[in-house]
Amino acid sequence: MAIAYQSPVKLNFTTSSSSPISNGFPNPIPNPPSLYPIKTRFSFGFNLSSVSCKTQTHVTVLEPEPVFASVTSFAPATIANLGPGFDFLGCAVDGLGDLITVRVDPGVKPGEVSISDISGAGRKLSRDPLWNSAGISAISVMKMLKIQSVGLSISLEKGLPLGSGLGSSAASAAAAAVAVNELFGRKLSVSDLVLAGLESETKVSGYHADNIAPSIMGAPTKKMRAALPPEVTMSHHIWNCSQAGALVAAILQGDSRGLGKALSSDKIVEPRRGPLIPGMEGVKKAALKAGAFGCTISGAGPTLVAVTDEEEIGREIGDRMVEAFMKEGNLKALAMVKKLDRVGARLVSSNPR
Amino acid sequence: MAIAYQSPVKLNFTTSSSSPISNGFPNPIPNPPSLYPIKTRFSFGFNLSSVSCKTQTHVTVLEPEPVFASVTSFAPATIANLGPGFDFLGCAVDGLGDLITVRVDPGVKPGEVSISDISGAGRKLSRDPLWNSAGISAISVMKMLKIQSVGLSISLEKGLPLGSGLGSSAASAAAAAVAVNELFGRKLSVSDLVLAGLESETKVSGYHADNIAPSIMGAPTKKMRAALPPEVTMSHHIWNCSQAGALVAAILQGDSRGLGKALSSDKIVEPRRGPLIPGMEGVKKAALKAGAFGCTISGAGPTLVAVTDEEEIGREIGDRMVEAFMKEGNLKALAMVKKLDRVGARLVSSNPR
Repeated sequence: MAIAYQSPVKLNFTTSSSSPISNGFPNPIPNPPSLYPIKTRFSFGFNLSSVSCKTQTHVTVLEPEPVFASVTSFAPATIANLGPGFDFLGCAVDGLGDLITVRVDPGVKPGEVSISDISGAGRKLSRDPLWNSAGISAISVMKMLKIQSVGLSISLEKGLPLGSGLGSSAASAAAAAVAVNELFGRKLSVSDLVLAGLESETKVSGYHADNIAPSIMGAPTKKMRAALPPEVTMSHHIWNCSQAGALVAAILQGDSRGLGKALSSDKIVEPRRGPLIPGMEGVKKAALKAGAFGCTISGAGPTLVAVTDEEEIGREIGDRMVEAFMKEGNLKALAMVKKLDRVGARLVSSNPR
Repeated sequence: MAIAYQSPVKLNFTTSSSSPISNGFPNPIPNPPSLYPIKTRFSFGFNLSSVSCKTQTHVTVLEPEPVFASVTSFAPATIANLGPGFDFLGCAVDGLGDLITVRVDPGVKPGEVSISDISGAGRKLSRDPLWNSAGISAISVMKMLKIQSVGLSISLEKGLPLGSGLGSSAASAAAAAVAVNELFGRKLSVSDLVLAGLESETKVSGYHADNIAPSIMGAPTKKMRAALPPEVTMSHHIWNCSQAGALVAAILQGDSRGLGKALSSDKIVEPRRGPLIPGMEGVKKAALKAGAFGCTISGAGPTLVAVTDEEEIGREIGDRMVEAFMKEGNLKALAMVKKLDRVGARLVSSNPR
């Protein structure tokens, strides 16, 4: 698979890999059947911004003790809304993502979370944990575990630009959920962590009923949501549905050509969002002309993603896309060729108490 | 998987199998990756009635000679519109279907087709080849092969009731296409045969541009088409799209529980068509209560299909569905427990010239 990208801060990535897509979460199964979480709408892929999710009650009889003094975790960038996979299909990108360190902190009020520092691309983010996706996710996990005796501090190193269409808020939320769970002895399941992350995502992207913090990530996602029609024609619905099926089949069968074709075939979302990304149409054409199997918007954009199965061709595709972004959209862009990440959010290190 | 069915002629089937779904066509690959044809919208499953399909020009330089004097073929019943798989996903049912014998007939004008006899459940069908799905499909294959020197006669033994939601017209069309192709030395690919069958399907179901023979199958499909809304909400679209992906994943992974859950989850078509099938809601409830993993309408109905992975449970589910059809819809029904057919249309016998 291959990906191409143009950011509001004039960056552009291209990613390339033939690997089947994995969900953005640690998978307990070696060589995981990557699509297992697709069985529920919101568990396939992680970078979801429009899911309304009921908070579940998780009964933990005894409050768990912290097992570590601190835990560091990493969660990768994600590409969601893969053409006809809009709002339910996402994949993780190898080598790009956020690092989170969670510490037991006697200076923080028991049961609460503090954000001690933010470095990297996220220095503009709020340090109020209720307005930061890592903070919201950490608090959600602590509530599930019924932690009332210790407070935590979070250190966030953002490797992802904000508002890029690469799931920046989701990566922070995923890493925080994994780290807090690990700190207390890994009591929660992957599904619980997805719910915690979703609680954060629905808050920062503004589709949750209570909607307390509409988009601390800036305008792109909200603007891109507004571009969507409230209804779609039956024929477009059937077309996109069939292509969603083809997309999933291509992923499960490791068919990168089919994957490209399917994610490039969206008749509902891309035609509305494309015109809002300067140069989009020309960049897509350039990618396909350079040999990409398909090309579409990553997330709510402005990243574009193109698919190939050879790194060399991926670089060529990326170069042509960068050129086209300049020529057609007057935007300076950057391309990266990346494989997919098949592991998802993971533990990096832990320090005993 | 398990299926349950109620027909306008007061018949009812239940089918049961845990096998992955195959497309209703002969597959040249042993243990076929059943979903390979999903790459184009209309090649996955065969019982499609709403596809507008451009006739392709197939160049055959020399007119092939008949290799056999006669060929007999069989094509199975199919279940289409599997919940969120509406209009693009279908599967074939083991042990139910139509038999076709095609003969080189000196009494038939060269390049033309005659229907010599129709037996079984299809005695009410037209014997005019232009108004009969087997005839239309046979003519389409002959045109692709550019046959101008011999005429053919067709004998049709219908094992499927008409207007039942089990793909009766498609089975005849598929069997005819396979038989004619075999008779002339199997020059055409499976894709060509699908196109020939589609030419027939689009004609008999009335969605083709020229629409020369609107529904020789009677009212059900047309009425069921009319029940559909012209537009769907974005949220329902996304839901059904995600469930279509889940359905394909379940099929490819042999997950009958996931298959049942996904095909039972349609929020667009079933809610509109269900009320037109007397007792539908109660029958679905009865199936689920009896242990079915899911239940939905087969094709345009009135067949209902339920999923299980054990034959014994399948029989129990079928009994409960028949009871509910009587109780809730005042309809006498019949249940059958069937595995899926993984072969599709096939050659039965051939006689040398």
